[in-house]
Amino acid sequence: MSKKLTKREDDYSKWYNELVVRADLAENSGVRGCMVIKPYGYAIWEKMQAELDKKFKETGHENAYFPLFIPKSYLSKEAAHVDGFAKECAVVTHYRLKNAEDGSGLIVDPEAKLEEELIVRPTSETIIWDTYKRWIQSYRDLPLLINQWANVVRWEMRTRLFLRTAEFLWQEGHTAHATKNEAVEEAELILDIYANFAENFMAMPVVKGLKTESERFAGAIETYCIEGLMQDGKALQAGTSHFLGQNFAKAFDVQFTSKEGKKEYVWASSWGVSTRLMGALIMTHSDDLGLVLPPNLAPIQVVIIPIHRNDEQLDAISIKVNEIVKELRAKGVSVKFDNRTTYKPGWKFAEYELKGVPLRIAMGPRDLENGTLEIARRDTLKKENISQSDVVNYVEVTLKEIQENLYNKALNYRENHITEVNSFEEFKEVLEKKGGFISAHWDGTVETEEKIKDLTKASIRCIPLNNSVEEGKCILTGNKSTQRVLFAKAY
Amino acid sequence: MSKKLTKREDDYSKWYNELVVRADLAENSGVRGCMVIKPYGYAIWEKMQAELDKKFKETGHENAYFPLFIPKSYLSKEAAHVDGFAKECAVVTHYRLKNAEDGSGLIVDPEAKLEEELIVRPTSETIIWDTYKRWIQSYRDLPLLINQWANVVRWEMRTRLFLRTAEFLWQEGHTAHATKNEAVEEAELILDIYANFAENFMAMPVVKGLKTESERFAGAIETYCIEGLMQDGKALQAGTSHFLGQNFAKAFDVQFTSKEGKKEYVWASSWGVSTRLMGALIMTHSDDLGLVLPPNLAPIQVVIIPIHRNDEQLDAISIKVNEIVKELRAKGVSVKFDNRTTYKPGWKFAEYELKGVPLRIAMGPRDLENGTLEIARRDTLKKENISQSDVVNYVEVTLKEIQENLYNKALNYRENHITEVNSFEEFKEVLEKKGGFISAHWDGTVETEEKIKDLTKASIRCIPLNNSVEEGKCILTGNKSTQRVLFAKAY
Repeated sequence: MSKKLTKREDDYSKWYNELVVRADLAENSGVRGCMVIKPYGYAIWEKMQAELDKKFKETGHENAYFPLFIPKSYLSKEAAHVDGFAKECAVVTHYRLKNAEDGSGLIVDPEAKLEEELIVRPTSETIIWDTYKRWIQSYRDLPLLINQWANVVRWEMRTRLFLRTAEFLWQEGHTAHATKNEAVEEAELILDIYANFAENFMAMPVVKGLKTESERFAGAIETYCIEGLMQDGKALQAGTSHFLGQNFAKAFDVQFTSKEGKKEYVWASSWGVSTRLMGALIMTHSDDLGLVLPPNLAPIQVVIIPIHRNDEQLDAISIKVNEIVKELRAKGVSVKFDNRTTYKPGWKFAEYELKGVPLRIAMGPRDLENGTLEIARRDTLKKENISQSDVVNYVEVTLKEIQENLYNKALNYRENHITEVNSFEEFKEVLEKKGGFISAHWDGTVETEEKIKDLTKASIRCIPLNNSVEEGKCILTGNKSTQRVLFAKAY
Repeated sequence: MSKKLTKREDDYSKWYNELVVRADLAENSGVRGCMVIKPYGYAIWEKMQAELDKKFKETGHENAYFPLFIPKSYLSKEAAHVDGFAKECAVVTHYRLKNAEDGSGLIVDPEAKLEEELIVRPTSETIIWDTYKRWIQSYRDLPLLINQWANVVRWEMRTRLFLRTAEFLWQEGHTAHATKNEAVEEAELILDIYANFAENFMAMPVVKGLKTESERFAGAIETYCIEGLMQDGKALQAGTSHFLGQNFAKAFDVQFTSKEGKKEYVWASSWGVSTRLMGALIMTHSDDLGLVLPPNLAPIQVVIIPIHRNDEQLDAISIKVNEIVKELRAKGVSVKFDNRTTYKPGWKFAEYELKGVPLRIAMGPRDLENGTLEIARRDTLKKENISQSDVVNYVEVTLKEIQENLYNKALNYRENHITEVNSFEEFKEVLEKKGGFISAHWDGTVETEEKIKDLTKASIRCIPLNNSVEEGKCILTGNKSTQRVLFAKAY
């Protein structure tokens, strides 16, 4: 606890890596690219899950579970899809180990080779559409609105905790509809759920937009996304929702009989957010002292630390604290009373600062005499002495304030980091000196997009949904353009 | 819906397989041995999860997440453990596919061979204890009480939906303690949580006991279990809790510094229940008409079906039904109003009977006139006409009655199917004619246990925890025995 975190301005990337481990969120495991999500990090993920799951269910979705493994042949059925995932997948080839005859230890048993290799799912469109073929016959079976909470594996070469790991946790929704319109509406509905979640729970402002062709999901007709902006001026794609057209229905021959008795291919959407959101949450709010958590996602919203010299004092303080704990819990506030005597108050202060607990209460013998307590905000680091009788109201009001303050601070940063440029020189200069989103005209071609990326490492994050038509010229080629798009360097 | 289920007395096994699929609980997938858990089945599993998770958290456990993959070398570190799992594990050997040069399609890229093979976790002791080595240094880090909700893979050759599948979902708890006593107490605490859950939520009576040496978990010193009895007289192991001693701490060199400054190996427990519980739930209560669900685990506790000839009638009924729905929901009852016009009432009656919804309400135009409704119990199939004004109270009382009735019925069956025998002839006769648990003396040797199993297919399910000392002679060898154990054929 004694060693300070690297400062963000000194090395943002190092700061992030240290923070994730030291705040007990996650750590690397003995398996290349796979992380261990530690209890404190997992508790935040559970809060994300609970809220998203509620929203999915409120909008008519049901959870289900599909196999971890995908037969190799399934992957090949949708052409764009296989191109996207075959290059980075974990392949199961055998189903048994045995002891080597030369005594050298465990080896793969060559006699236990699978007839067809199995891929550990990188995403589940193929296995799910193979299943939907059995579930969908009539228009009465539609819409089918299903979500799955699962682990997936993509064999990334360069990994970073939460942001890019070989295995990660996510939810993936897979829906089937009778009409194109319904499927598009579904993809848009989910995008709104994601955006509202990001803004109201993560306190992270996001831009809703469409991906360009080259950034689309492998197999999608259209990919919607929400893009956040991190404190170092880099963008982070926080969630995607895809309109899949009839691509997977055709690949897996899923047709339904319409009300009019006609056979038609089913229309589809798929959508997901992952433990990557944890990375976005961390990088949106945290500071050089550690994690800063929005109250709506904090596993512990208030920590109470007793200041005492002996057991007698601790006992007296505990009586009062337990009353406060009870009152706060009755209001739905999650409180921890850290009465461990194995750690000193100073150590505890630093620990909960590092872990981003929104409010910290300290109470000593003098507070007991005076009916007061000290309460400190993690976001502003401001301390106040208040009356014990005001604590419940103070906590309720302040937690709301912190949630809003974090959002406004992030929004303010984001608004100050969307820069309109009209030339490539300006583009490069803003990118280098300021970062953030750059709003610029682009001629709409994949070639130009790639050239800009090669020259600057900035990619088109999205074509914002609320874009207005604006005549202009592409910053690179000077060709005609009808709208601005958002560029940024990205995670 | 028209085709009836196979009757239990005609073919219990076929009845089970049909029921699981037709009640929309699960089905086989295109991947050998892996199931798809359908939304209705998954909703029951979610209710199981929620209740167990609550109990784990109330007793101080936290959730975390560990990698899906286990390096081959980890598996070898605990000798008994590797013997238990190496023979049936999915092995990842490569991390990429590519297009074959001869155009024959996707093949494993031989250049993307892993240096060390990865096993898809069959259970996570090894990867977790490799992690605990980093987490545990001092007595202050103990106890470590962690649970994980995850998927695991065991390459079973003969699989059955829920009961034995290559991939299944489960929770696995892994705890670390400073003393042997604490670890044993933890294993026993969890056994109680499992038993209480089985009895109070699943309405399934269980025997708590210890496994014999040959039935112990691979790597455990002692395995505690809960054993249920299915309607066909076969036992089902529904959960296990293991005292692991210092086996994994030694294998992964996990030591802590005690209060006295001494280095000591950590003591461990692990414990789990899985989607197998779904099989137990189904086979404990269901009948020839379909699933029968205890109200505490039913995703839909009450279904309301309107009986109408035209839209006008439906509208009038809906107004009243929506009032009732609102009142019931306010009491925490989960209600579904099935007002679909694409299906007829008779079809719906059969559908919800098949799906085991505890209470079914029907309301027609005459009910509307008379202020009545018809309410039917799934467990007893009894119908009553009651006043609409009594419905909330009736539902609350009856759901409790159904929960108790199902438990008592199952307990009664179980009590009538524990038979004491004193000779091997009697043993074989009871096993063949009546089934159930057989309480008999056994000489305590692995040889006798195996011989009995070879001769009769019955295994020792457990040594009950509440066993009394009783002098006797082994039913097979006539050797001295000091207590009875429970034998049964088992799933």
